[in-house]
Amino acid sequence: MKLLLEIFSQGEELVTGQIVDTNAAWLSQQAVALGFRVARHTAVGDNLSELIALLHDIAQRADCCICTGGLGPTTDDLTALAVSEAFNIPLLFDEQAYEQIAQFFANRQREMPASNRKQAMLPKGAERLDNHWGTAPGFSIKLGRCWFVFLPGVPMEMKQMFQGQILPSFPQRFFLKPSLLITFKTFGAGESALQEFINTIEISPLVELGFRAGTDDVHIKLLFPADYPKQDMQSLIAEFSQRLGDFVFAIDGLGEETGDLVYEIDKLMKARNVTLGVIETLSHGLLAAKCMGCDWLLSSSYQHYDMGSEAIIDVMAVAETMAYEYKKNSVTDYVLLQFYTGDKDSLHSKEKSIEMYVVLLTDTGLHKTRHLIAGPIQRKQNQAALLSLDLLRRYLSAK
Amino acid sequence: MKLLLEIFSQGEELVTGQIVDTNAAWLSQQAVALGFRVARHTAVGDNLSELIALLHDIAQRADCCICTGGLGPTTDDLTALAVSEAFNIPLLFDEQAYEQIAQFFANRQREMPASNRKQAMLPKGAERLDNHWGTAPGFSIKLGRCWFVFLPGVPMEMKQMFQGQILPSFPQRFFLKPSLLITFKTFGAGESALQEFINTIEISPLVELGFRAGTDDVHIKLLFPADYPKQDMQSLIAEFSQRLGDFVFAIDGLGEETGDLVYEIDKLMKARNVTLGVIETLSHGLLAAKCMGCDWLLSSSYQHYDMGSEAIIDVMAVAETMAYEYKKNSVTDYVLLQFYTGDKDSLHSKEKSIEMYVVLLTDTGLHKTRHLIAGPIQRKQNQAALLSLDLLRRYLSAK
Repeated sequence: MKLLLEIFSQGEELVTGQIVDTNAAWLSQQAVALGFRVARHTAVGDNLSELIALLHDIAQRADCCICTGGLGPTTDDLTALAVSEAFNIPLLFDEQAYEQIAQFFANRQREMPASNRKQAMLPKGAERLDNHWGTAPGFSIKLGRCWFVFLPGVPMEMKQMFQGQILPSFPQRFFLKPSLLITFKTFGAGESALQEFINTIEISPLVELGFRAGTDDVHIKLLFPADYPKQDMQSLIAEFSQRLGDFVFAIDGLGEETGDLVYEIDKLMKARNVTLGVIETLSHGLLAAKCMGCDWLLSSSYQHYDMGSEAIIDVMAVAETMAYEYKKNSVTDYVLLQFYTGDKDSLHSKEKSIEMYVVLLTDTGLHKTRHLIAGPIQRKQNQAALLSLDLLRRYLSAK
Repeated sequence: MKLLLEIFSQGEELVTGQIVDTNAAWLSQQAVALGFRVARHTAVGDNLSELIALLHDIAQRADCCICTGGLGPTTDDLTALAVSEAFNIPLLFDEQAYEQIAQFFANRQREMPASNRKQAMLPKGAERLDNHWGTAPGFSIKLGRCWFVFLPGVPMEMKQMFQGQILPSFPQRFFLKPSLLITFKTFGAGESALQEFINTIEISPLVELGFRAGTDDVHIKLLFPADYPKQDMQSLIAEFSQRLGDFVFAIDGLGEETGDLVYEIDKLMKARNVTLGVIETLSHGLLAAKCMGCDWLLSSSYQHYDMGSEAIIDVMAVAETMAYEYKKNSVTDYVLLQFYTGDKDSLHSKEKSIEMYVVLLTDTGLHKTRHLIAGPIQRKQNQAALLSLDLLRRYLSAK
């Protein structure tokens, strides 16, 4: 029997539908990969009696519960109080938590409001979880059958704390047999196209195959049970890799740390010790924004240009000339340029497409691609940034 | 006392985190607007005993429950069976439901699989809800205190059925008074600081006050009951507006459409018919990226500059000079510039802060702010983009 885990989310904004609970799904994926059975997600509003009732129920029926939200400084943040009342545990002032909250404000040269003191009150016997990204410390505590972990509701803070402080402590607390999850991170082909590449591969019924199409990439997942034969696993992974080809930009689960497309490009650019200059049009600054913290991106500029309706004879030729021109006046090793055709209406309309030309100039010459990008304007922007970066990625990983 | 409504979602793909439950948020919004209090969202997997336990609980504590999922033809679709077992109600063959399912396949010239017959088995006493978009009919039934509505999990089918068949039936079933939600969208102050601004305002216990801190802004919400005196409401809103001052960039719920910070700036820039040029450093292209589709942003450039460790005597003076220089060579009406000090380590370290200087040059002169930005590098980037845009927003809305 697998150990039971529940997800519990707190916040009026959740139960009133103002925000969608993405934390619950993210945490569930982590829990399943660890080897838990996730039995239930529950979200309740800022209501003390309902919080208390729910804590009582979960303490009886689950082995572990990850709770998010309700740790803020305001009066509607009730989690610690609910734990205290539900299990008759006093709230104690945690000196270190208070120091950290005070430091948060000091770092920003802002005065700490009196209400933030409340965040340093933790149930007696709880283990504090440090929050390096916001003011709300989390805590964990065993209540009844269940080990409860309380984390802030802000997804970024929650994820960092879960990965940094909770994940490493699971092996000491629970006897889990993690299944092995292999994730092929792909870019450049849609979910159904990817499925066609692999649909003749024979997969054991013990292995779960899954797809997740995100905004920036498509993940293909293989979940192997703990005791699955290693050799069979390796040959299946090899077959997937071969069929999916260079649409795969990273394979997660094989021991090496992987990230998103920019993370992988960053590794490759650093290894070559080269620099890049960019001219953005359709991506509107987003290409540079995605490369935050990457020192090899020396410059990026966006220029608004109204394409009007007149047809440009040969956009690609213009782009090529511009790339050589840019390179002449620049110190960067590589130049990445983006152009597009289509009028303002095509840009804004989700029914219309934009034709984009990407040119990459490197020491080995000119590399170029052409794409038709459809969908809402924000999707066009994002695809433009990613498709341009992907030309760079394919070039870097080719030789 | 408001009537209590719960949302109940069924599906293994939800509890394992393969999909995010957007149905629950959508249904909650509908329910809140109708005048219900939404007490809880629960999602469970395809597990008969858990479904039964949950149905029992909800039948005792809620006045209405909207359930999605579990109505499909496969063996893991257990909703009707769970209702039958939980309340000892036989499942009866519904001739009309069967006809509709058969018609669905006939219309597509496909043979109906035997498994689909199961979908025509409904609990005795249930009212059938026709599904014109898929094969799964829904049903509604009163169980204990609660009126249960069972709808398919496919969002499009669920929404069509809810709007077409459930929404019109509410006034006959429940005595509801729709409430009014006012949202103050703010930027520039944290949740606790905002609370301090307003904490001496007397708020009727009938009015619900709520906060929601997002990555880009903080929302303060006032939920007024249907019969709340209009004048009292207006004076409370006025008092909130006055106390919160220009931290508020938009007020939602007063009839005018509102959006995020860029949406509001876009309205103001268009009204003045002015253009902008930007030099980004810390925001690394993200400022321009956030302004996608805004024609008034004529250019933006990012230049990597290694600040090293040497102290710059007067960054603000440098920024001012650069702004005037830029303006001389540019056609834009306004210039927005961003500088920062701090070494590479301070940029990357989530414990260290970066000092940012923002300069806005307009026809009325120079406007400037200085900020200390802390947190992980992506947060610094995002805050840099938003704080710079906010200087522009404050200038535009001031006169």
